[in-house]
Amino acid sequence: MIDYRRLRVALLGAGAVGSQVARLLIEHADELADRSGAALELAGIAVRDVDAPRDVALPRELLTTDAETLILGSDIVIELMGGIEPARGYLLQALNSGADVVTANKALLATHGAEIFDAADQVGASVYYEAAAAGAIPIIRPLRDSLAGDRVNRIIGIVNGTTNYILDRMDIEGADMAGILADAQRLGYAEADPTADVEGYDAAQKAAILASLAFHTTVPLEAVHREGITGVTRQMMDAARHAGYVIKLVAVCERMVGRGAASDGEAISVRVYPALIRRDHPLASVHGVNNAVFVQAEAAGNLMFYGAGAGGVQTASAVLGDVVSAARRHIAGGAGVGESTRANLPTVDIGQVVTRYQITLEVDDRPGVLARVAGILSDGHVSIATVEQTVQEHTTTEPSAHSAGDAGSARLVIGTHKALEQDLGETVARLAEDDVVERVVSVLRVEGD
Amino acid sequence: MIDYRRLRVALLGAGAVGSQVARLLIEHADELADRSGAALELAGIAVRDVDAPRDVALPRELLTTDAETLILGSDIVIELMGGIEPARGYLLQALNSGADVVTANKALLATHGAEIFDAADQVGASVYYEAAAAGAIPIIRPLRDSLAGDRVNRIIGIVNGTTNYILDRMDIEGADMAGILADAQRLGYAEADPTADVEGYDAAQKAAILASLAFHTTVPLEAVHREGITGVTRQMMDAARHAGYVIKLVAVCERMVGRGAASDGEAISVRVYPALIRRDHPLASVHGVNNAVFVQAEAAGNLMFYGAGAGGVQTASAVLGDVVSAARRHIAGGAGVGESTRANLPTVDIGQVVTRYQITLEVDDRPGVLARVAGILSDGHVSIATVEQTVQEHTTTEPSAHSAGDAGSARLVIGTHKALEQDLGETVARLAEDDVVERVVSVLRVEGD
Repeated sequence: MIDYRRLRVALLGAGAVGSQVARLLIEHADELADRSGAALELAGIAVRDVDAPRDVALPRELLTTDAETLILGSDIVIELMGGIEPARGYLLQALNSGADVVTANKALLATHGAEIFDAADQVGASVYYEAAAAGAIPIIRPLRDSLAGDRVNRIIGIVNGTTNYILDRMDIEGADMAGILADAQRLGYAEADPTADVEGYDAAQKAAILASLAFHTTVPLEAVHREGITGVTRQMMDAARHAGYVIKLVAVCERMVGRGAASDGEAISVRVYPALIRRDHPLASVHGVNNAVFVQAEAAGNLMFYGAGAGGVQTASAVLGDVVSAARRHIAGGAGVGESTRANLPTVDIGQVVTRYQITLEVDDRPGVLARVAGILSDGHVSIATVEQTVQEHTTTEPSAHSAGDAGSARLVIGTHKALEQDLGETVARLAEDDVVERVVSVLRVEGD
Repeated sequence: MIDYRRLRVALLGAGAVGSQVARLLIEHADELADRSGAALELAGIAVRDVDAPRDVALPRELLTTDAETLILGSDIVIELMGGIEPARGYLLQALNSGADVVTANKALLATHGAEIFDAADQVGASVYYEAAAAGAIPIIRPLRDSLAGDRVNRIIGIVNGTTNYILDRMDIEGADMAGILADAQRLGYAEADPTADVEGYDAAQKAAILASLAFHTTVPLEAVHREGITGVTRQMMDAARHAGYVIKLVAVCERMVGRGAASDGEAISVRVYPALIRRDHPLASVHGVNNAVFVQAEAAGNLMFYGAGAGGVQTASAVLGDVVSAARRHIAGGAGVGESTRANLPTVDIGQVVTRYQITLEVDDRPGVLARVAGILSDGHVSIATVEQTVQEHTTTEPSAHSAGDAGSARLVIGTHKALEQDLGETVARLAEDDVVERVVSVLRVEGD
């Protein structure tokens, strides 16, 4: 047995991830020492209530409600409490005392990342956060280090397991969202209040973190355009399947050239929304609660990283990898390497984004309607790539609201060439107001071409 | 413009990868400085012949045939010459002078890795080799760092683009290997002498590197069991497709418990061979020259890393990521972090491996044959999971060699439960000698269950 230098490790939080981290630190202590070159001594676990029931039995003597005293004199502080405060205060305390910190707190990094990273730079400490985006999937180190000599042009990520589970089952079963969401809640894949997941807040936080790394730019959460999945209906899923697509909630981080108000050079767009993905794209076969991050880089070409996006023990794997890295750095000496943010690219508004769209309309079924719709699109600088028209079958016995003349109802599915989001939005508004259009059924972006 | 500290970079080799690395170091100098915190000054490029034609125009004044003088006083040495000598000597010279080294040399690392890593440890320098396994795919950092707190149980990798291209086209087109290999050579996907790829030598070197990282053990190349793809026929591909499989050349690195001569605890198996992969496994959809590495870890679960496994500019991406990491470490100070090899697990012989098999036999088509074959398997401790028997149609007009009695010929495809390779080998030998068996058509392992 080698006599390793001892490092004092403080754990803040003993929830689903924290309790697994504590268990693995204790059970695998010898292996972790061999790998990191340091004996990792779990000095204590700060919790709100030492008597609360937990998934994993933890040594009672390690539990404390006094996080601040625990942090004092620690070499590595692992923050798994979540939320902004008191997590932010504890991390700043830890960094100011010279400890390295490991965190899975995406909400904190997406909102106060710059402050945390600055505090680390001041004292030459390091912040590790592999678990803050895409759970167990190693994506932070590949972006931060492996691709540091390349230029990332686009990331398309499925980074929220809850919404992928819901959309995947809607696609496979042809079912409505409500029942599947209830199942997901029962199975522990969705929270009792699912807002953070289904409205895209969680994905937006991860998108901000990934974009910051990929583009060497501090991307504030407010710069991320966000739409959730609550507007996705069974009918939209069915129509997507019919057209060779699947609908996924994607986080898109994109480098753009020559666009963006603040710059005539490069800019970036970061956005989260449900989008159509072609069935033969690697992201289309990401099922259930899994995550995947598809990266397009100038030199490396297309890369994909796939795995479990959440789960207590899975996320604990990423946290422990960070703990080993922090320990190795402590033993090797030297300052921590700060974040690379000097590119400082401006973020463009969603209106400046260029992508393809699929517009589904219900229109009057009479001569001249297609010409009229095509004319509105053309006037709006939106070029049509594909059109499919089908006559609607009225399944209701009530008389149609549009009973004047011979006009039944038809459905138009229009695939556009690449268009400016702003032009597209204005054009769709004009379509919605036009007499021949009964209803704009859906407008979806197409990603991953 | 920030006045960064200058770091002197020496490049050894200006082939397909080296010339791209030189180009990107020059073209992206400002970006690389912002990202690494150091001005990376390309001090020179050592080549065998300064007048040789190159893919990329390189500044003539940087070219030199004197590698040893170039290495003197360099902070970072990039070795992209390939081969054992003089690459080994140059790397040792660089490390001994305190430089960090970046290399894509899998042959060198798989045979002299321990010597190189020891030399780095002696002086506190670092060795970076992201490009040495699976080209542009970030797999070294995920294994070395992200998964350092987890326990990797199995890696199944498609790590050779040439053989994947050949097998993929055989599968899709139902074609013979010879013509596709000729195409691959014409397209630059295969060397004029394809031995290193088609006989599995290249994959075996990468398997040794991946297994060393995954199991914290120095795995010598001699410990890797290696079989190439030259025995894979169109008929085997067709039969695999019929059974719901595809044949891929895989590198398998596996942790085993309770097996292996030298240990009653844990051991590892590292092996390269063509294997059957189920069509619904993520590795089955890795097409063309792409690579993918599928990792099963105790806590993280299943992960997959996918991307370009070769190519000059793609591999240059991985090399430059390493250069940025080396530069950041130089600026931060501190010693390099050595390889983690203290687990020191023994490697078992191929005979100790346990996996599933598919055995294809041509047998006499007469009563009692299936019972006889099943008896031989049972005697050899090989348990049958599935059997499919089809009567052979004789497409030749020549009389059958087995014309005695009414015995035509039948084909038996036997899927086994998990069996010990040694038992399987002995059993197949007994089958081959038995009177009822006309021919053992093929024996393939099944991986990825």
